[in-house]
Amino acid sequence: MLMDGTAAAKRIVDQAAADTAALKADGVTPCLATVLVGSDPASVTYVRMKQNRSAKAGIGSWHVELPEAITTRTLVAALTELSQDPDVHGILLQHPVPPHIDERAAFEAIAPEKDVDGVTMHSFAAMAFGEPGFVSATPGGILRLLDEYEVDLAGKHAVVVGRSPILGKPVGMMLLARDATVTYCHSRTADLASYTRQADILVAAVGKPKFITGDAIKPGAVVIDAGYNPGNIGDVDFAGAVDKASLITPVPGGVGPMTIAVLLEQTVAAAKMAQRRL
Amino acid sequence: MLMDGTAAAKRIVDQAAADTAALKADGVTPCLATVLVGSDPASVTYVRMKQNRSAKAGIGSWHVELPEAITTRTLVAALTELSQDPDVHGILLQHPVPPHIDERAAFEAIAPEKDVDGVTMHSFAAMAFGEPGFVSATPGGILRLLDEYEVDLAGKHAVVVGRSPILGKPVGMMLLARDATVTYCHSRTADLASYTRQADILVAAVGKPKFITGDAIKPGAVVIDAGYNPGNIGDVDFAGAVDKASLITPVPGGVGPMTIAVLLEQTVAAAKMAQRRL
Repeated sequence: MLMDGTAAAKRIVDQAAADTAALKADGVTPCLATVLVGSDPASVTYVRMKQNRSAKAGIGSWHVELPEAITTRTLVAALTELSQDPDVHGILLQHPVPPHIDERAAFEAIAPEKDVDGVTMHSFAAMAFGEPGFVSATPGGILRLLDEYEVDLAGKHAVVVGRSPILGKPVGMMLLARDATVTYCHSRTADLASYTRQADILVAAVGKPKFITGDAIKPGAVVIDAGYNPGNIGDVDFAGAVDKASLITPVPGGVGPMTIAVLLEQTVAAAKMAQRRL
Repeated sequence: MLMDGTAAAKRIVDQAAADTAALKADGVTPCLATVLVGSDPASVTYVRMKQNRSAKAGIGSWHVELPEAITTRTLVAALTELSQDPDVHGILLQHPVPPHIDERAAFEAIAPEKDVDGVTMHSFAAMAFGEPGFVSATPGGILRLLDEYEVDLAGKHAVVVGRSPILGKPVGMMLLARDATVTYCHSRTADLASYTRQADILVAAVGKPKFITGDAIKPGAVVIDAGYNPGNIGDVDFAGAVDKASLITPVPGGVGPMTIAVLLEQTVAAAKMAQRRL
């Protein structure tokens, strides 16, 4: 059975739009600032998509475009300014940034209370420790989708393939917080399939097209494909996996829309919190 | 073969003592502030042990004792003051604190640059992301002991039993950073032995005496017992495990001394950094 991320995301975005309307009636317009460095075509597309969805939900968006050659220092200064600007409620730095930039330093310039994409060290630790904070958007979207399909996580074996700071690591911590037994696999894992074949819940987050093949999947597993490779190809070989999995996310239309939905939902939540602080 | 934490710790503490002597010659005395809330006998013993070891290494120690009935707010204020005091280089809040206190709020009042016990959210995320920062003392001690015995971690399956914020979670993140494939098990894990029997490296961090029995251990595994239960009893049934493991930590004399050694080493490192900032 397919896990319909588009439909689940619509419900979240509809709620965000309703909440936005209520906030506007109170004189507050939720505002998401998107920051794009350089002009990588995929990044341009993602940012535009996020702005369009924001606009549809009534969320204001600011867009900051910075040249490819910018220094870490200038990027940090721009993000610090947005962090201090009372009109901005959420900040999204589109990643990856160009390799000469210290991405971590840039992320850390985002104030935790505006980190609606959940990329800061504070947000990560908050996810891991069950403290208040924003979740990483994609991991948060994955958990929402699992909940939408009433997947029981407690005591189940969740295998996460990938250990990036914005995807693999936080999704594992969120699954652990929900009482799954969690295994982190990665490029140095010996005999990867011996782990993935144990997975009741398999999260593919490696960024390699069709990396997880059908024979590496346990019959009846729930398969979450968080890959977004060129040409809309996931990390899972869908044709090989679809008959093994009990539930599986399509690419596109699975995790992707959920990511944006959580981003918008958290922007609205940030605006509500800012309003409460006034 | 036994992993001799006492001997490995002595080498670390001897180096810390030499570094302390050099710092003192430069006019800086490394200083560790220990904070104890209430008078739990085990906690009193632990704090005293840390003070004694500090004194032996020439590290200055301040001791703050606060009554059991203290509020979170007062404890946070005391820790904030120590965080701001230029004469204090490292801060240790002995845990657990009494249940009416918000332990996380207390930990977060420790400045990251003085968090020599590695308990803050910042230190945790830094460990997970490979960023500069102090490590949790016990996990840091475990990794040092594994290195001391030249245990190869890359591609190996490390199973961590326990998921506490100061032990299980950070040790898993540190093992992952060293390219182990890492599985987190816990109280809700179904069929725990089916995981522990796969472990090339098994870390027991649950706080239940003799919880891991010999039949749950893979022949040839490296077994790290981070348990510290009343009566010096570990989380591993040593008698049952010793013939299965290739390397195993005794209790006492395994992980315990390493924890204190890393605490002192990090206090000296904090003093060096403070000196550099002058």
